Amino acid sequence: MLSRSLRRSLIRQVRFQSTSSTAKSPLPPLSSTKLPFPKCINELYQNPPAPNTPIQLQGWVSATRISKNVAFVDIVDGTSHHDVKCVVRPPSLIPANLNTGSSVQLNGLWVEGKGKQKYEVKISNTAEESDGKKDSNNSLVVLGEVEELYPLQKKVHTAQFLRTIPQYRWRMQHLAALLRFRSYVEASLVEFYNLHSFTKTHPPLVTSSDCEGAGELFKIESNSLVGTKEKFFGKDAFLTVSTQLHLEVMCAALSRVWTLTPCFRAEESDTNRHLSEFWMLEAEIAFIDHVDQLTKFSEMMIKHVVRKLVKDADNFGTDLLESMLSKEQVQQIRQRWNMLLAKEWDSITYTKAIEILKDAHAKDNTIFKYEPVWGEGLRSEHEKWLAGSYFKNPVFVTDYPIEEKAFYMSINADESTPTKTVACFDLLVPDIGELIGGSMREHDLKKLEAEIQRRGMNLESFDWYLALRENGSVPHGGFGMGFERLLQYLSCTDNIRDVIPFPRSVNNCPC
Amino acid sequence: MLSRSLRRSLIRQVRFQSTSSTAKSPLPPLSSTKLPFPKCINELYQNPPAPNTPIQLQGWVSATRISKNVAFVDIVDGTSHHDVKCVVRPPSLIPANLNTGSSVQLNGLWVEGKGKQKYEVKISNTAEESDGKKDSNNSLVVLGEVEELYPLQKKVHTAQFLRTIPQYRWRMQHLAALLRFRSYVEASLVEFYNLHSFTKTHPPLVTSSDCEGAGELFKIESNSLVGTKEKFFGKDAFLTVSTQLHLEVMCAALSRVWTLTPCFRAEESDTNRHLSEFWMLEAEIAFIDHVDQLTKFSEMMIKHVVRKLVKDADNFGTDLLESMLSKEQVQQIRQRWNMLLAKEWDSITYTKAIEILKDAHAKDNTIFKYEPVWGEGLRSEHEKWLAGSYFKNPVFVTDYPIEEKAFYMSINADESTPTKTVACFDLLVPDIGELIGGSMREHDLKKLEAEIQRRGMNLESFDWYLALRENGSVPHGGFGMGFERLLQYLSCTDNIRDVIPFPRSVNNCPC
Repeated sequence: MLSRSLRRSLIRQVRFQSTSSTAKSPLPPLSSTKLPFPKCINELYQNPPAPNTPIQLQGWVSATRISKNVAFVDIVDGTSHHDVKCVVRPPSLIPANLNTGSSVQLNGLWVEGKGKQKYEVKISNTAEESDGKKDSNNSLVVLGEVEELYPLQKKVHTAQFLRTIPQYRWRMQHLAALLRFRSYVEASLVEFYNLHSFTKTHPPLVTSSDCEGAGELFKIESNSLVGTKEKFFGKDAFLTVSTQLHLEVMCAALSRVWTLTPCFRAEESDTNRHLSEFWMLEAEIAFIDHVDQLTKFSEMMIKHVVRKLVKDADNFGTDLLESMLSKEQVQQIRQRWNMLLAKEWDSITYTKAIEILKDAHAKDNTIFKYEPVWGEGLRSEHEKWLAGSYFKNPVFVTDYPIEEKAFYMSINADESTPTKTVACFDLLVPDIGELIGGSMREHDLKKLEAEIQRRGMNLESFDWYLALRENGSVPHGGFGMGFERLLQYLSCTDNIRDVIPFPRSVNNCPC
Repeated sequence: MLSRSLRRSLIRQVRFQSTSSTAKSPLPPLSSTKLPFPKCINELYQNPPAPNTPIQLQGWVSATRISKNVAFVDIVDGTSHHDVKCVVRPPSLIPANLNTGSSVQLNGLWVEGKGKQKYEVKISNTAEESDGKKDSNNSLVVLGEVEELYPLQKKVHTAQFLRTIPQYRWRMQHLAALLRFRSYVEASLVEFYNLHSFTKTHPPLVTSSDCEGAGELFKIESNSLVGTKEKFFGKDAFLTVSTQLHLEVMCAALSRVWTLTPCFRAEESDTNRHLSEFWMLEAEIAFIDHVDQLTKFSEMMIKHVVRKLVKDADNFGTDLLESMLSKEQVQQIRQRWNMLLAKEWDSITYTKAIEILKDAHAKDNTIFKYEPVWGEGLRSEHEKWLAGSYFKNPVFVTDYPIEEKAFYMSINADESTPTKTVACFDLLVPDIGELIGGSMREHDLKKLEAEIQRRGMNLESFDWYLALRENGSVPHGGFGMGFERLLQYLSCTDNIRDVIPFPRSVNNCPC
């Protein structure tokens, strides 16, 4: 029982019920909800002006076709997969310096379209005066020219070539669509977490801890102190490889927290699914006690995003699909989305996964380069085969051997396996392999200390982290998901470098 | 005019209208929209169970009051400003190791409240059997104890003391409310930008450029290469001080872009409004040509956030206000929000600002420590006085002298000032001073090159940035806002370190 003196010191928290009624005043009207700049193409299509309204429009020329009596100029502005088709009559209204890629400003008439498109813009000089002055309400002006060597005048380029021109490549419509997709998926995730009482929080990127206890770190120092003995932070500081440990601090106060922040790994692997700087979504949840709660929750999260995409696609067309360069790509993406929603995802233990892999290997030893062995991590080929060939669906693999995983994971009581296992999971998806990794976190102070010591790690450097288990410790768990991996997977993009604006990897930081 | 051969090479972009109808299939029902974990306190209040429903609840004890026949235990879980009040009868049901700060799990009856609170939870042993077994449907169990020296058993601590225990401080209800406020404001901003066809994008944090051309940078290197001649990125790499230059690249493709990312400054200033790692909101907008468009837009943005806050406060109470420790704080915040919405914000030129400051200084030379002089930057005291004492409202100051600002800003044609000025603005707010800084960006290649050279900066290192002006250049502008400054201002928080989970500054990176 509490001591009497301690009890007496417990004072009621000062609270103000219905403070909302104090200082209440009528909300002043918004001076304007209208943006102080001209409409963009997305706004024109979301809320189209009445036909035959004069409009002003700016954008970049994506194509031109000029014949004797009429010219067509297509304008894009990156806010939508839609272009605006302009019918220019006579073609002489087109300035001599207009080219694919030029930025332009036009004044014309917004009219109903004649072909497939619902609307188009008519630019004509019907109002031309006898003195040759053009009607300023009908004009097409080049704002920024392009050089003869401008690389994007052709419509088709390899993704590889486009990666060599980071300053221009997002002007390609299908790449711009990937950035809009990124923005859309992030907003869906914000919605999902808000719906479920999570706080989006911002753990630090600069840290003096090493979360994983391994891995290649980037070290940071004030530029003016590099090479001196002084240290800006008074100690060595690194860029975070995972915000999990700090997120656990917030979880132990706010119960449900998530974040989407950059993480950094100085790994020299140069593959189509690794980056040195990437965005990671991490979530931590208090008051749960089984890894199944985490797998079910992460399944809900991804399905929330995909359901929105499919609904949009069915109702008014998804920006991403409309921007794809081929019908095959569109079908591939639709199939993937449908597959993700089709049924509840399977969950198997690591031990079961090894059994399945061993069986397959025994039947045909050409499937895998590496033999599946209990106690060793799953190779990327194993992960892809399990999800892609065996389950043909996302699959959770749980309870890996302790030596394959990090120190903070809860150790299972199960004694039937060759070595102990931990209450963790990986979500494996076809084509990509691991998309999410998570676990229950050890919340018992003594057990956690013992494990840190068993691994020969420095107990003192985890003082602040262990403190969470000293006072008001709660069972909790969480997971991390590479945001670019998710985008890559949902958009069927081959290379992770095409879903992040400026990919960073070994020897690759041009600007 | 285009060459004929070039024309012929312009092929129609491959597009698929109504791809949305391909592969259409009925959306499978969600297997479950119910979270796989027990309800949190926010969910209990948002969607209360019917009175007399048995519930399970977890959280931390925020207070206890024990008398002879009954005990009261207040539970919080950080998802809401609300606590849940438990009425425990008899008090002996309270475990001996329960204390303020303990984490607990309880099973009880959700009933209508008797005092101010609408609901409370009854825990009683009415169902106690004669053999002494307690009804498992009525229980209160400690999950995690607290040590005798646990620092948060008292309810009132100075903010300064709490900053010394970063692992615990967010368990204080009023600090947790600031983190939820942060999450809320970010979601409002996501909503605002989505409403206006902006793409949220993610410029790199690792860069080989120095945006501002000055300022203290952090240098980064792979930990295993520090001290060697090798460089992970093949060149020197730094943490970004502003993502603007990269954001301009995306703006020149997507027209309207914004971001909210960490930025880093190795400044040794140790004030209550500076951090070495902070989050910055930056926006870039294409096809605008006057700084007034930027000021009006940024005013709309902040008013959008504040209107939501005021509406919530008027309707069902704002989480932040309900969590404040004093009525005075609540009034101060309400007044600030009302003030922000009351009228359209003034905008004056820098030249006019200096006139006003000089007049005030002439009348009373004790107001300022530093004399206001045209051509010198505004001091923090000048900024605070202009907004706080003169306008008593946020105020935009535009068109600063060129030497006070960065190389990329558009130079004004105005010849009436002692030196040239640039088309820029700062938003000054009472108490804080500068909240936003922005400008039109020079989009004319020759002018920009000339300015870079005039400043003795290295033209070559800006190749990629200058390229934007070589092809399809567009008039554009943008701004940056310290996210923590906004939070600090809107929540009337004295120290910026209380609105970010783990503040980083010189000699301050404890974990």
